[in-house]
Amino acid sequence: MTDTDGWEGDLRDTGLALKHDREWDYELERVAEAVTEQAAETVGLQFPEGIKRRAPNVASDLEAHLPDRVQIYISGEANFGACDLDMDLMRRTDVFVHFGHSPMVESEGVVYVPLFSNVDVEPIMAEAIEHLEPGEVGLVTTAQHMNKFDAMQAFLEDRGFTVQTRRGDERLTHEGQVLGCNYASAKVPAEQVLYVGGGGFHPSGLAMDNPEKDVIIADPVNNVVKPASAEKFVKQRYAAIHQAMDAETWGIIAGTKIGQRRHGIAEQLAAENENASLITLDEITPSHLKNFGLDAYVNTACPRITTDDGPQFDQPLLTPQEYRIAIGEEPMDALEFDTFEGTW
Amino acid sequence: MTDTDGWEGDLRDTGLALKHDREWDYELERVAEAVTEQAAETVGLQFPEGIKRRAPNVASDLEAHLPDRVQIYISGEANFGACDLDMDLMRRTDVFVHFGHSPMVESEGVVYVPLFSNVDVEPIMAEAIEHLEPGEVGLVTTAQHMNKFDAMQAFLEDRGFTVQTRRGDERLTHEGQVLGCNYASAKVPAEQVLYVGGGGFHPSGLAMDNPEKDVIIADPVNNVVKPASAEKFVKQRYAAIHQAMDAETWGIIAGTKIGQRRHGIAEQLAAENENASLITLDEITPSHLKNFGLDAYVNTACPRITTDDGPQFDQPLLTPQEYRIAIGEEPMDALEFDTFEGTW
Repeated sequence: MTDTDGWEGDLRDTGLALKHDREWDYELERVAEAVTEQAAETVGLQFPEGIKRRAPNVASDLEAHLPDRVQIYISGEANFGACDLDMDLMRRTDVFVHFGHSPMVESEGVVYVPLFSNVDVEPIMAEAIEHLEPGEVGLVTTAQHMNKFDAMQAFLEDRGFTVQTRRGDERLTHEGQVLGCNYASAKVPAEQVLYVGGGGFHPSGLAMDNPEKDVIIADPVNNVVKPASAEKFVKQRYAAIHQAMDAETWGIIAGTKIGQRRHGIAEQLAAENENASLITLDEITPSHLKNFGLDAYVNTACPRITTDDGPQFDQPLLTPQEYRIAIGEEPMDALEFDTFEGTW
Repeated sequence: MTDTDGWEGDLRDTGLALKHDREWDYELERVAEAVTEQAAETVGLQFPEGIKRRAPNVASDLEAHLPDRVQIYISGEANFGACDLDMDLMRRTDVFVHFGHSPMVESEGVVYVPLFSNVDVEPIMAEAIEHLEPGEVGLVTTAQHMNKFDAMQAFLEDRGFTVQTRRGDERLTHEGQVLGCNYASAKVPAEQVLYVGGGGFHPSGLAMDNPEKDVIIADPVNNVVKPASAEKFVKQRYAAIHQAMDAETWGIIAGTKIGQRRHGIAEQLAAENENASLITLDEITPSHLKNFGLDAYVNTACPRITTDDGPQFDQPLLTPQEYRIAIGEEPMDALEFDTFEGTW
């Protein structure tokens, strides 16, 4: 993960990490009910990186709600989204609980605990509207603040704005929700979009995917209002494409995470280039690619690994479209953010 | 992985990396036969770290042997042993080929290609016997040199040695074979053991597991003879144990790799300590544990992660026995290498 000022390029900076004291509702009674209903003997718990530190205490609290026979396991795998369920732990446990993300697809085997934030969004919204033009505004937020979405909308309408909201596509659970890889809910006619939520991860993707819109961040967690910008990312993407133009050998990465599979695209790219190898990989890190010694890589899994972590890799790491630009199949100015829509 | 002089502490330095020009037999005809027999449409290839660089060319050569309809995938997961089959790729492909390791358990779904070395072992053995006492000597080697094991034995016997060999346990495929986690084949009466093979990884484990024996390394790959020593490791282990004595909270890691599961031990340790959390994890790296923020960790999976990579973790990482020493259940001088026997 990149180590920046927290506003750009850090997959861990998703607003879940606690900047001030705040309590989540882990809904342990609901989890305990699922255990009882299924007469479960094993429970698996998965937490996003930002709240992993709470995992041991949550497991301990949950244990007090459960019969002695029940064994609790905490997933140690890295986690950055509902696209990334720990399928191994899910298979091996009777009840599997995923904290902090809303479902991408409803799955009978998974108890989703959304961890809604109890932070008050209105003070920072009051500040943010000073930076908006009167009239139409798109409104988006993250899973953590969905419990306040109606209130946000009313707040803006009460102040004379025409609020445009949209339910993105089937990858998104809620109207107005954004994911790190999907900003379809921001595709409204308004030329300005207000993002209410913590962290720099989501708004930077929002800006990358909507270069023609003004994106204002109202961050109630860090108590900051600022515009979102994709400029740094765009420069990095062009640099990576240029570097990859000299590549003779390519690795095409087919990600194996349950919600990050675009194997059809990966297979297609590998088939079209006789100097490309098809590589399957779960967690995509520089150390996993290092020993292959190829000149450049195309990542068909989570696009944020490419945009946010790309500069940390020894070789250029491109999105599928960037690859097509690098090999001359598309013009340089065609560059778009690699959104991930509807894929499971 | 540690970055040492190549003799100690590097899981990648297993003798598979090429120090001089050498060709492996990838047995592509045998793989192609398996594809034909099973009318396979998909083939998965897994390579150890040391020869990953060859993977794209091997895949490309194999492609020429196969019908066009067959899709080849290369596993991008880290690999350090037959304990660590890429089960996801294996499940998703009709034929799955594991290069460079001998089987731990025969599995119908896996084609094992051992990659025997064609290096001549006799010149370095001639040098090594100068460092042996006359009389009894144990003889061990790695999977790569098993094709020469009978010749090694005859070489020593011709020069007057009484050679003691042993088939370790069911984790080992061959008489005289060692694994990074299992040196049962060296448990012979002789007070000296000759290790013939490349790299520093296996002999350092051999020395850790046999502190009472003299272990001589005859490395035909790097053309070096030297004694194996566990001294550096033993010091590091004691340092880690001492540091962990102050720990209040513990993470007990249950590894999920197919041949590294000792979940019974992990569950037992977690059950006995109310300040211990049970964490499941595939690849055990510092970044995976970092966000849990616990004081110390016990690794029940591959012991070489603990001994070789341990110093790179932010918190002490102990073997199960070292944990018992740290919490006062066993005396300090009971310390033994954490061999991994017969577990699958």
